[in-house]
Amino acid sequence: MSNTAGKVIKCKAAVAWEAGKPLVIEEVEVAPPQKHEVRLKILFTALCHTDVYFWEAKGQNPLFPRILGHEAGGIVESVGEGVTELKPGDHVLPVFTGECKECAHCKSEESNMCDLLRINTDRGTMLNDGKSRFSKDGKPIYHFVGTSTFSEYTVSHVGSVAKINPAAPLDKVCVLSCGICTGFGATVNVAKPKKGSSVAIFGLGAVGLAAAEGARVSGAARIIGVDLNSNRFEEAKKFGVNEFVNPKDHNKPVQEVIAEMTNGGVDRSVECTGSIQAMISAFECVHDGWGVAVLVGVPNKDDTFKTHPVNFLNERTLKGTFYGNYKPRTDLPGVVEKYMNKELEVDKFITHSVSFSEINKAFEYMKAGQGIRCVIRMEH
Amino acid sequence: MSNTAGKVIKCKAAVAWEAGKPLVIEEVEVAPPQKHEVRLKILFTALCHTDVYFWEAKGQNPLFPRILGHEAGGIVESVGEGVTELKPGDHVLPVFTGECKECAHCKSEESNMCDLLRINTDRGTMLNDGKSRFSKDGKPIYHFVGTSTFSEYTVSHVGSVAKINPAAPLDKVCVLSCGICTGFGATVNVAKPKKGSSVAIFGLGAVGLAAAEGARVSGAARIIGVDLNSNRFEEAKKFGVNEFVNPKDHNKPVQEVIAEMTNGGVDRSVECTGSIQAMISAFECVHDGWGVAVLVGVPNKDDTFKTHPVNFLNERTLKGTFYGNYKPRTDLPGVVEKYMNKELEVDKFITHSVSFSEINKAFEYMKAGQGIRCVIRMEH
Ligand SMILES: NC(=O)c1ccc[n+]([C@@H]2O[C@H](COP(=O)([O-])OP(=O)(O)OC[C@H]3O[C@@H](n4cnc5c(N)ncnc54)[C@H](O)[C@@H]3O)[C@@H](O)[C@H]2O)c1
Ligand SMILES: NC(=O)c1ccc[n+]([C@@H]2O[C@H](COP(=O)([O-])OP(=O)(O)OC[C@H]3O[C@@H](n4cnc5c(N)ncnc54)[C@H](O)[C@@H]3O)[C@@H](O)[C@H]2O)c1
Ligand SMILES: [Zn+2]
Ligand SMILES: [Zn+2]
Ligand SMILES: [Zn+2]
Ligand SMILES: [Zn+2]
Repeated sequence: MSNTAGKVIKCKAAVAWEAGKPLVIEEVEVAPPQKHEVRLKILFTALCHTDVYFWEAKGQNPLFPRILGHEAGGIVESVGEGVTELKPGDHVLPVFTGECKECAHCKSEESNMCDLLRINTDRGTMLNDGKSRFSKDGKPIYHFVGTSTFSEYTVSHVGSVAKINPAAPLDKVCVLSCGICTGFGATVNVAKPKKGSSVAIFGLGAVGLAAAEGARVSGAARIIGVDLNSNRFEEAKKFGVNEFVNPKDHNKPVQEVIAEMTNGGVDRSVECTGSIQAMISAFECVHDGWGVAVLVGVPNKDDTFKTHPVNFLNERTLKGTFYGNYKPRTDLPGVVEKYMNKELEVDKFITHSVSFSEINKAFEYMKAGQGIRCVIRMEH
Repeated sequence: MSNTAGKVIKCKAAVAWEAGKPLVIEEVEVAPPQKHEVRLKILFTALCHTDVYFWEAKGQNPLFPRILGHEAGGIVESVGEGVTELKPGDHVLPVFTGECKECAHCKSEESNMCDLLRINTDRGTMLNDGKSRFSKDGKPIYHFVGTSTFSEYTVSHVGSVAKINPAAPLDKVCVLSCGICTGFGATVNVAKPKKGSSVAIFGLGAVGLAAAEGARVSGAARIIGVDLNSNRFEEAKKFGVNEFVNPKDHNKPVQEVIAEMTNGGVDRSVECTGSIQAMISAFECVHDGWGVAVLVGVPNKDDTFKTHPVNFLNERTLKGTFYGNYKPRTDLPGVVEKYMNKELEVDKFITHSVSFSEINKAFEYMKAGQGIRCVIRMEH
């Protein structure tokens, strides 16, 4: 056991005090893990759009002060009561959506939407006692999606932590905790394109590029990237995207453009935009008889998906996925192994790297649409 | 070869002269089959709703005079040029949607929507020469969906005719040419419920009862029948339906009623109504994480399927199917074998039987909603 076990740890954390205001590196106190909790030493964390959304807190219940962050790699520092699956020193990826292994969803072969530990962006406290493990000057600081990785130490439920191969470089595989697995899994676990098939990817952000990587790894022959921003096209070539469509360049719906390019439609499509219009186009651009479309993007609350029901009757399939259908604890170690075996390329997603003290730069890059992932080095 | 081969056959046919007017049994002339065509002696034919729709011709292009009929069993009388798969004496089921075995759909493992022979309700002539093989007093009578089985003899494209086991009783298996396979296949080929699972069937007409039969054969534990007409419930018990919901009995949406009955939703649902409201309910009543909904009913032209996209993101799947995803020539012989092995029960679908001269009685039964299938005996 580490000599900090059972004690409060004082460490640095980047605190979001107010919506949209730069994070402030503060000295905070991190309480020991309680029942079914673990305390992690974070080594690397990356910035994802979801952090930015909840930091901007537009149209959400603002919950501040809060420690954001959910794409990360770290090492178990100590474990709470009843934790048998993890021990100090284990290399882990915390994940924003957990796996209790006991509920109907966890027991189903098909679902990863754990009843107990499914993502909950409104809760800022731990399940065990409804309280925070973070404080400053005696005042609590809220958690974020059970991970709060913008801190040198954090506390998570054991069900939200995947144990991985200790040989895996945490500065690289940390990005597998969220966006990359979401897109890659949407293609390989849900869309399942066949070798030689055609796949359309809507949205070429981190999630869409990971979906394209899934199509490349699956041996798709045609990978058609669709984005309203043509600046995304050059980088997308590295991810196997070999044809490009900007809906703005055409005066007919993009689903018609794609149907013409592909003699009736693509075999698979994966929507990674969050735009309801892209969701409808992604569905309507798949071939009748066998086409499968997969929705990944998070829509607005009042969006409605609309299509003519005959588009379904003509033997098209529409599915949605959450976190690429991966069960975090069961499946993530295997994704890390795919990286270790050089099947899945991860390094090309990491376009920037900053030290923890420069974390606000990562927010700047993302707001400016520069690069894909910025990894933040904790430098303990 | 029969001694009628190559000659015009004079025989009796039930001709629809005008929309909604009783059929008239007439003596007609049936020309010999041309290239890739076969002439069939029909022994038994059943009445399906689709015949009634095109006879009423409400909201469709009226095409009269016409010989309707598409659920039937018969024997090959003679074959045209280039036909090698069938010979006189073969027992067959003509099917309203064909299988050329050469197009992209036929070559795909997943689709049965043949490019050449897919159902076409607007065409009243043969593909080969754009003409009819039926005439009376030298004037042509139109064909219907490539089958026109309300005639003692008919001509079909070879791709629209399935060769079956000659030991199968044609007075029973004739009903496999349309509705029964559509519903049964929707469940066993597309929804694929697991043993012990829960299945909701929307609409308890012939198609829905066949879908229920598919759930029963698959070992589903709970088969929930949903119909606006509670008179359907008693008969549905014979098809394994063991719980019933009439949306009219509840003052909340039926998808909520089903979610409450099943702790969050059914594992599978199959919509067999044609009502857009039922399609939306059938989708929204499946469990998140793993639920699959299958649409079978034919909607109105201007219907729109609407739902919140989050219903997809929560890992639900929506698919449509056409003719239960069966490829008629490849798969129908196997369905007949399932009947011969007593795996699939067919007799319980046949609630009435009339002689050819009484064919208008079959229309009366269907319009009155009496029974499921009425088999018409040709009595040559
Ligand atoms: N389902 C999950 O588990 C999960 C997890 C993480 C992210 N997401 C969601 O995935 C989506 C993509 O995330 P990201 O980080 O890659 O976002 P991003 O903003 O980096 O990329 C989105 C891309 O989509 C493009 N786009 C927007 N509207 C479009 C349209 N109508 N047609 C074509 N292109 C369009 C944008 O130009 C942009 O390049 C978001 O909605 C995000 O919330 C889902
Ligand atoms: N996809 C195909 O290949 C194919 C083939 C044949 C038939 N069909 C279609 O299947 C559907 C069913 O055919 P059928 O012959 O069994 O019809 P049917 O009229 O005998 O049965 C339909 C049943 O649905 C019920 N119903 C109608 N609206 C409802 C609602 N909103 N909620 C609950 N129940 C409702 C009716 O009361 C009726 O009992 C039709 O739309 C038909 O066109 C499709
Ligand atoms: Zn669980
Ligand atoms: Zn994320
Ligand atoms: Zn074909
Ligand atoms: Zn029919």
